[in-house]
Amino acid sequence: MGVDERRQQLIGVALDLFSRRSPDEVSIDEIAVAAGISRPLVYHYFPGKLSLYEAALTRASEDLADRFAEPHEGPLGARLLRVMRRFFDFVEEHGPGFSALMRGGPAVGSSATNALIQSVRQAAYEQMLSHLDVTDVSPRLELLVRSWISLAESTALIWLDGRRIPRRELEIQLVHDFAALAAVSAAYDQEMAGLLKKMVKDEPADGHLADLVGRLISLGS
Amino acid sequence: MGVDERRQQLIGVALDLFSRRSPDEVSIDEIAVAAGISRPLVYHYFPGKLSLYEAALTRASEDLADRFAEPHEGPLGARLLRVMRRFFDFVEEHGPGFSALMRGGPAVGSSATNALIQSVRQAAYEQMLSHLDVTDVSPRLELLVRSWISLAESTALIWLDGRRIPRRELEIQLVHDFAALAAVSAAYDQEMAGLLKKMVKDEPADGHLADLVGRLISLGS
Repeated sequence: MGVDERRQQLIGVALDLFSRRSPDEVSIDEIAVAAGISRPLVYHYFPGKLSLYEAALTRASEDLADRFAEPHEGPLGARLLRVMRRFFDFVEEHGPGFSALMRGGPAVGSSATNALIQSVRQAAYEQMLSHLDVTDVSPRLELLVRSWISLAESTALIWLDGRRIPRRELEIQLVHDFAALAAVSAAYDQEMAGLLKKMVKDEPADGHLADLVGRLISLGS
Repeated sequence: MGVDERRQQLIGVALDLFSRRSPDEVSIDEIAVAAGISRPLVYHYFPGKLSLYEAALTRASEDLADRFAEPHEGPLGARLLRVMRRFFDFVEEHGPGFSALMRGGPAVGSSATNALIQSVRQAAYEQMLSHLDVTDVSPRLELLVRSWISLAESTALIWLDGRRIPRRELEIQLVHDFAALAAVSAAYDQEMAGLLKKMVKDEPADGHLADLVGRLISLGS
């Protein structure tokens, strides 16, 4: 194997191990065994566990950011639901590692890992704005999108802790949460009200959002 | 000054400095000058900056948790709004330190600081449950309360970054966000629907929640 090929293989093996258990619990020895090479050879490619962890996290971050890409076609709710499904796929694939990373801790709280988390959040933010099709981003819209992204993160983390609600329900719930938070923002802001109307206009009459509105109305009766 | 008195004074001085700037940027020398004692004397009371930071953070955590306490009287929306006001008071008092802590980083990402953050979240969670007056906590209710707490954190962090929306508006918005997220949850869950009805029943007809509902209805027309 060439140098780069070997590095890429090691990153893949490490990412798999860092995903399945808390990174604190994964040793270089274990990574070497899983990669079928000696411990010194691992150190030949990566100076230590932290640099290998950061390389694995970089790959995972790029993978996650790629999953946010969604064609600009069809109703916004359906697009968002597809992205939520791919997000939960990712969370499921990397469960324990995702939890450990997002909850912080000695092995996972470096400036480099924080910068990677921020870069994924920024990618999610930019994707959302591009789908909302706005050029001038008001402070309220920025708050809505960024705080909803953090809601998606915390919902996924709480789901991982026991999986007591089916993920399919949470994926839909997060789409509805976005609409609900947008509605609250729109109640006090003209610009957000315009955006909300645009979002709702494109929704199909038999879609998830119409279903939600119907259910909410029946709650009041 | 006695030993304990001196320790408490140092913690107060350090908390003030750690609140006003990112803890990374605060030196032991500076703390010594602000406390009017020598650098070696600081080390006599605290082995290093991290232990002083953790002591300051412990005091701030207890202070924040105390602010969640709210009498069990009157409509839930008004109680929650008073808590949100005290939360934003705290965030305003400790702005840069709160930001640095919650965004993570080398000086602030220890296991001890993470445990303190978790303890404050847990205190907020328990307060919310006691006001909702439920004994059997369903997974959806737990998700609602915990994810709303994370929404309050991220809203405060985004506010600190430029303060482009008046905090008074965000305090009310967070109360409405809670109602909106509860409504989404209630649309798909009988138990949550019952809880939502109970919450809304006690709200005054001229209160914030009625105002929100009125505004939302007018959006649709």
